[in-house]
Amino acid sequence: MKPTENEVVRKLLHTMHLPRPTAGLALGPGDDAALLAPRPGYQSILTCDWFLEGTHFLRDKHPADSIGWKCLARAVSDVAAMGGRPRGFLLSLALPVSCTGRWLVDFGGGLRRACVELGCPLAGGDTTQRDEILINVAVVGEVRTGKALTRSGAQPGDAIFVSGRLGEAERGLELLRRMRQVRGSDRALRKHLYPEPRLALGQWLSEHRMATAIMDLSDGLSTDLPRLCAASGVGARIQAASLPAVSPIAHANSGKGSRSKTAQRNTSELAWNSKAIELALNGGDDYELLFTVRPYKARRLPTRIGRIPITRIGEITRERKLLLVQADGSEQSLKEGGWNPFAAKSR
Amino acid sequence: MKPTENEVVRKLLHTMHLPRPTAGLALGPGDDAALLAPRPGYQSILTCDWFLEGTHFLRDKHPADSIGWKCLARAVSDVAAMGGRPRGFLLSLALPVSCTGRWLVDFGGGLRRACVELGCPLAGGDTTQRDEILINVAVVGEVRTGKALTRSGAQPGDAIFVSGRLGEAERGLELLRRMRQVRGSDRALRKHLYPEPRLALGQWLSEHRMATAIMDLSDGLSTDLPRLCAASGVGARIQAASLPAVSPIAHANSGKGSRSKTAQRNTSELAWNSKAIELALNGGDDYELLFTVRPYKARRLPTRIGRIPITRIGEITRERKLLLVQADGSEQSLKEGGWNPFAAKSR
Repeated sequence: MKPTENEVVRKLLHTMHLPRPTAGLALGPGDDAALLAPRPGYQSILTCDWFLEGTHFLRDKHPADSIGWKCLARAVSDVAAMGGRPRGFLLSLALPVSCTGRWLVDFGGGLRRACVELGCPLAGGDTTQRDEILINVAVVGEVRTGKALTRSGAQPGDAIFVSGRLGEAERGLELLRRMRQVRGSDRALRKHLYPEPRLALGQWLSEHRMATAIMDLSDGLSTDLPRLCAASGVGARIQAASLPAVSPIAHANSGKGSRSKTAQRNTSELAWNSKAIELALNGGDDYELLFTVRPYKARRLPTRIGRIPITRIGEITRERKLLLVQADGSEQSLKEGGWNPFAAKSR
Repeated sequence: MKPTENEVVRKLLHTMHLPRPTAGLALGPGDDAALLAPRPGYQSILTCDWFLEGTHFLRDKHPADSIGWKCLARAVSDVAAMGGRPRGFLLSLALPVSCTGRWLVDFGGGLRRACVELGCPLAGGDTTQRDEILINVAVVGEVRTGKALTRSGAQPGDAIFVSGRLGEAERGLELLRRMRQVRGSDRALRKHLYPEPRLALGQWLSEHRMATAIMDLSDGLSTDLPRLCAASGVGARIQAASLPAVSPIAHANSGKGSRSKTAQRNTSELAWNSKAIELALNGGDDYELLFTVRPYKARRLPTRIGRIPITRIGEITRERKLLLVQADGSEQSLKEGGWNPFAAKSR
């Protein structure tokens, strides 16, 4: 027998062990809308993200638990890119009837972990039936008034930094596509299945007034950097050899094996690997932070902030061009090769 | 040539004549997230709504302009049901490439009118490509702290009211399904294509502390009233003869003709019409307000609040049953016959 909408909602809330109303919210799920009490001296951050079967994930490949984690983590990443903290989220979920059983329980488990680890309770949402799994997450966050970080403040001469490693999620996706049986615990898949928004780093950069411009890398550096530059009215020169790239995975069915090989290679070797450079430039879904820092401050930046490595990859230029400097010193224009949903069919 | 995501976003913003940032928002569309400055003494209202091709509208039947209006209006209706005011919204839009031309311009026109008339500026959103049109709208509103109206305060003896007429949107949908060529200007379709959230009524009820419980009617009275009763831990008795029902449309291809006939009938005749009662009980998409009022206050309520008629349709009971009293005095249990997405295939 087909469940009612009320039953699907009750099952999800039960799976997530949610009290009503959720702590931290004046009114949580169950009414026409949720109520959140903003703190004095703070602005609200608003952001939303699609997460769609066939476009952003594959039902037969991606574990439901990972879909639950990632739909929230990627939306929260935009809050990190503003230097803020998440306060709550709305979940819009459209499901086939066949996903209202075990799938929903696993999905709710991953979502619940993300709620707890990211400090972002479920405030409400909307549920309906659909042949494909459609997810939309809207997050409300907060940032102290005047402390929000935007894309538009980069100035010529600023140093450009990225957090973490670039291309790791795309490498995971390439591996996952070739796997018969996906294990969520596979370490080579972790960045793709369970990305971690850089909340602490974003807050550190905001509190220390360190970043002139910032955004999160969701579509790939070669597509996202032009957006930051356009918002700031500047250009950029990127050093290919400086990119914190990863090794491509050589063998289709052995994440672990290829990872231990990876560990044996050294960083300079990786930087020369054209596949790794391509992944770093064009790979999507990393949810690392891209930010710019005034040169006199850049010299004092540590190589890690918290536990997250940060790497200087180039500088902002007055001329509104995007250039990639190869290891031999030759320059070429940086082509947008990241994720464009109106060109690609699926991630 | 296929457009890029940036181009689609620019076109929509241009169609909507949006300055950047939008007035009323600290930071509007174009960055990782939007910034909203909450007012001291107010709580934030959060709500979201799916609006999906095939489920909630038909691409070949519903004018793009109406889809733009309705996707925002129905989400804002939840803010009305809390007694609040909208402050801004996030638009998540997934479009086929074939809808990035004329369709997008018309959609943007309807959405822009809704923004202006409902006082709810676009704050941001997410855009992607998809074979079917998928829309999700998240609205942030505000209500003075302590003044929010919820579903959970109804008490035995309270009078039950609804605003406007019930079943008018469903009647419009039935007509639209039978039409070869849909004219957005057809008055019989107006409630279905361009519903008006009852913002002023919701605010009036909140300011005058008039409603003990309230919700908006989106899925139909017979499905929504049990939700209000469950939240309040009560039952209800509804008088069929009191329902502000509409006349069913007799002729398939002439909304105007059947409307003028409708006007000739008197209200008591309508109340006896089983089709009209069925529409009033089970028709979705009306976005009228359902609310309960303490009996001593109910006697003093006017028959209109602002320009919106309000009608007393029954009373809240201690016994947790939902009963429908027929015109002959016989009682039957009220069956949930409204919109359930997990049973129905399309609206």
